[in-house]
Amino acid sequence: MYAISLGEDGAELRPLEPWLAEEFLTHIDRGREFIGQHIALPDRVTDLESSRALLQSYAEKAVAETGRIYGIWADGKLVGGVLFRTMDIEHGNAEAGCWLEPSAAGKGLVTKAARVIIDWAIEERGLHRVEWQVSAANEPSIAVARRLGMTKEGVLRQSYLYRGKRHDIEVWSVLAPEWRAAKQAS
Amino acid sequence: MYAISLGEDGAELRPLEPWLAEEFLTHIDRGREFIGQHIALPDRVTDLESSRALLQSYAEKAVAETGRIYGIWADGKLVGGVLFRTMDIEHGNAEAGCWLEPSAAGKGLVTKAARVIIDWAIEERGLHRVEWQVSAANEPSIAVARRLGMTKEGVLRQSYLYRGKRHDIEVWSVLAPEWRAAKQAS
Amino acid sequence: MYAISLGEDGAELRPLEPWLAEEFLTHIDRGREFIGQHIALPDRVTDLESSRALLQSYAEKAVAETGRIYGIWADGKLVGGVLFRTMDIEHGNAEAGCWLEPSAAGKGLVTKAARVIIDWAIEERGLHRVEWQVSAANEPSIAVARRLGMTKEGVLRQSYLYRGKRHDIEVWSVLAPEWRAAKQAS
Amino acid sequence: MYAISLGEDGAELRPLEPWLAEEFLTHIDRGREFIGQHIALPDRVTDLESSRALLQSYAEKAVAETGRIYGIWADGKLVGGVLFRTMDIEHGNAEAGCWLEPSAAGKGLVTKAARVIIDWAIEERGLHRVEWQVSAANEPSIAVARRLGMTKEGVLRQSYLYRGKRHDIEVWSVLAPEWRAAKQAS
Amino acid sequence: MYAISLGEDGAELRPLEPWLAEEFLTHIDRGREFIGQHIALPDRVTDLESSRALLQSYAEKAVAETGRIYGIWADGKLVGGVLFRTMDIEHGNAEAGCWLEPSAAGKGLVTKAARVIIDWAIEERGLHRVEWQVSAANEPSIAVARRLGMTKEGVLRQSYLYRGKRHDIEVWSVLAPEWRAAKQAS
Amino acid sequence: MYAISLGEDGAELRPLEPWLAEEFLTHIDRGREFIGQHIALPDRVTDLESSRALLQSYAEKAVAETGRIYGIWADGKLVGGVLFRTMDIEHGNAEAGCWLEPSAAGKGLVTKAARVIIDWAIEERGLHRVEWQVSAANEPSIAVARRLGMTKEGVLRQSYLYRGKRHDIEVWSVLAPEWRAAKQAS
Repeated sequence: MYAISLGEDGAELRPLEPWLAEEFLTHIDRGREFIGQHIALPDRVTDLESSRALLQSYAEKAVAETGRIYGIWADGKLVGGVLFRTMDIEHGNAEAGCWLEPSAAGKGLVTKAARVIIDWAIEERGLHRVEWQVSAANEPSIAVARRLGMTKEGVLRQSYLYRGKRHDIEVWSVLAPEWRAAKQAS
Repeated sequence: MYAISLGEDGAELRPLEPWLAEEFLTHIDRGREFIGQHIALPDRVTDLESSRALLQSYAEKAVAETGRIYGIWADGKLVGGVLFRTMDIEHGNAEAGCWLEPSAAGKGLVTKAARVIIDWAIEERGLHRVEWQVSAANEPSIAVARRLGMTKEGVLRQSYLYRGKRHDIEVWSVLAPEWRAAKQAS
Repeated sequence: MYAISLGEDGAELRPLEPWLAEEFLTHIDRGREFIGQHIALPDRVTDLESSRALLQSYAEKAVAETGRIYGIWADGKLVGGVLFRTMDIEHGNAEAGCWLEPSAAGKGLVTKAARVIIDWAIEERGLHRVEWQVSAANEPSIAVARRLGMTKEGVLRQSYLYRGKRHDIEVWSVLAPEWRAAKQAS
Repeated sequence: MYAISLGEDGAELRPLEPWLAEEFLTHIDRGREFIGQHIALPDRVTDLESSRALLQSYAEKAVAETGRIYGIWADGKLVGGVLFRTMDIEHGNAEAGCWLEPSAAGKGLVTKAARVIIDWAIEERGLHRVEWQVSAANEPSIAVARRLGMTKEGVLRQSYLYRGKRHDIEVWSVLAPEWRAAKQAS
Repeated sequence: MYAISLGEDGAELRPLEPWLAEEFLTHIDRGREFIGQHIALPDRVTDLESSRALLQSYAEKAVAETGRIYGIWADGKLVGGVLFRTMDIEHGNAEAGCWLEPSAAGKGLVTKAARVIIDWAIEERGLHRVEWQVSAANEPSIAVARRLGMTKEGVLRQSYLYRGKRHDIEVWSVLAPEWRAAKQAS
Repeated sequence: MYAISLGEDGAELRPLEPWLAEEFLTHIDRGREFIGQHIALPDRVTDLESSRALLQSYAEKAVAETGRIYGIWADGKLVGGVLFRTMDIEHGNAEAGCWLEPSAAGKGLVTKAARVIIDWAIEERGLHRVEWQVSAANEPSIAVARRLGMTKEGVLRQSYLYRGKRHDIEVWSVLAPEWRAAKQAS
């Protein structure tokens, strides 16, 4: 029902709710290998039940205001999304993230979608700091952080145990004044 | 963030979420007497805590898919809303309703908003029957039911205890085939 | 332990509690086809676990004062029952219902049992309105509503999805003053 | 609604449910000093809220089959009761108890009531052992244990902290074979 | 991490926490037949899941201050333990118990361990009465009660249903003044 | 009962459990101003109820294996502590921290205590990475991180909203191989 245009080609940002579990699973199945290179989302969404459970957990986070998930549709197909893995309204912090199936890569959809939700978080909900945690090997996601005007703050060494190996995690962030300055400059 | 236009004059349908509790309370305060003539909503929303509690309960209903609430904004101000007081996806039934502060009455906002959510419920979520329960004395709401193409099915005698008196409740409804036929005809 | 006589032939109304799950299942098994013509009870009671779950849910409703279930015993055998599917003490409303296995039909047991619980609900618990919702095709149950002195208030079109088909539901009710007048008249 | 006669003078045993909280409180108020000599019930039932909470806790115990409470009415007035403070259906054990306001003492009501519930527990629910724990100073309750044919098994020294003092607790019990033998002998 | 020496031979009393479920299961497996002669612990700990569940339940009891469990290690191996099956800080009562695999029997480990925890319960937590309930046939455990200076208070006839048979339970206890007097005398 | 010596002067590390809420509050009261310079602990422990709530929350974290809290006693007085604010056994990560009242500062107690719990976490519980998050202005705590052989990984800019101001947070950590190498070297 609700939808926000992500540009001229008809791509849209929409609520990604539990009743879309089947569509979500199909999408993850298409992008399983690609998305799973750096993030655990595909490992958590392996069948209809787990797909619904993940969306359910984000629906509950939304109620408690501790997280949010958003889907990106292109050509009427769910192809990826952005999310606030955590949100702390009281302290003004959130951690954002993204995923995308390969067919939709290279069009800037994630950057556009992330801009929408970060702007909402800062301007509507009063967040001061939006963090972007990303595996040091995940170059596309790091590129998004850079395009969003974020600053690299450090590297959490071997903090991410993923598929049996430990990976470094880069921490990027943008602060509310930086976000507003960048909007005015553009 | 999400918003659906309700016509040329800038009115919009948007998610009505717990973090909007303060704005919701202010709106109810403005419409308290008018809205409270026939429905108990103002009696349930009397301060910030109860305002948040009501929106919280609908956020939880949305997660469980047993209800939904939507706000109507006109001139940037929350002026009313529509809701599914109950939803039963499995059996294909829902009960819809509405409220409005007096300043926004007479513009057809509720009818337009109800059309959006009923259409979504029938076309996207597969509901078969949308019910409209209304106090027999609430003429504006009965007028909405009529404009939505609903049929009056009966009167539940003295079933609604409100402010110490028992009121008759009219039951109206529209079925999915009727809804679709009416859309094609228009 | 507790028991209320339903007439000269030794039939009794008794608490139908979770520890009777086995007896309840056996009874439903005997009446599965007959009872299942119009109501979903047999579909919800298919083995010992689901039998206990249903009785458990009513035990919890009784604690919360949102429902009650009662068994009818004839010749020492559980043969049916009556229930309040919903109760709303605060607003004075309840919805009553019944079921019976075929061997016990035609003796007026359900009418007698319903009279006991409706009288208790109105006289002891102060309910104002007792509703009887029944599939339009369920003639025996409609006959009970009529014998209880209820009034038909309307038909909820296609509101009851049962075994893949949509059925009309008739709504009957009796109000406290009507109940008392009928008692005095008899 | 349900009621079991306790003899010729019209006294009855009935369910003691949460909605009777007000009547229960009034009764406890009348017997507060007398009942409170040996048991803590009056200290737990001091206003409408605590009265309801106690009955609510027993309603929940009944659902879980871990306890039961029953009221004794004489001349239409709640005057006392019997209870299973604990029940363990799986292991066949229960602990029974009683209380009475002074106006109803001396008529054997508690003994009759306890007989009804112990017989039900042993014959209907299959319990093997019913215990009676009583303060060593509570002579009327010890007399009931004796009249019920129970055997004194020991004294739990200073195990009961009540109103700032430690009291010895006598443990009495009757076993299912003893119960049945006594019934046959009488 | 934490450990209390139980004597010269290196035996220690340590927290027995859920993460030790595997070690606990291995220990119970070694002593299954011996321990299971009189107490049900081995029947409740039959695989990793039930082992963890039992330790988890005691971890939750510790949080709620309603019980505690402690392991005895000898030669770096978990060989038994002591516990408070119940604790009631408010009323000053607790019930203690013990278990041991056969290889560690005859060294007084349980008596030493029980002394540590009873002394803590009385001196640090202010308990007045520590009870020891034991099957009348469990001579080693009765010997511990005697060595701890406890008094036999009675026999709960056939109160313990274990592996299909009913057993008498002896109740022993020690009161705080007795405990302190015995410490001074030694 | 349990205690671990922290050196020659009798200081000890002990479980810091809910029943110590009163002693914990008294200690926080003594150190309120000093401890509150950089961390929010004193703001969360302001009366007996909040003191108990904080210890209760850590008791529950311990059960769930998501955190731990330990007290430091010197001269029989609770003077500070160390904790795992978070623990993730599955992924091998934890975040440690500390606090101290001023009278106990300068003796190396926190460093010794942190060594005990980090060593336990790495050697007993298999953690791979222990993090130390500290306000950039909290020099004593940064000194502890340095003495523990940790590495500074970055600065989370303005991420910590404390008493109305935003503070930078330094992230330090030690990895299991580093920890073991340092132990061997010493």
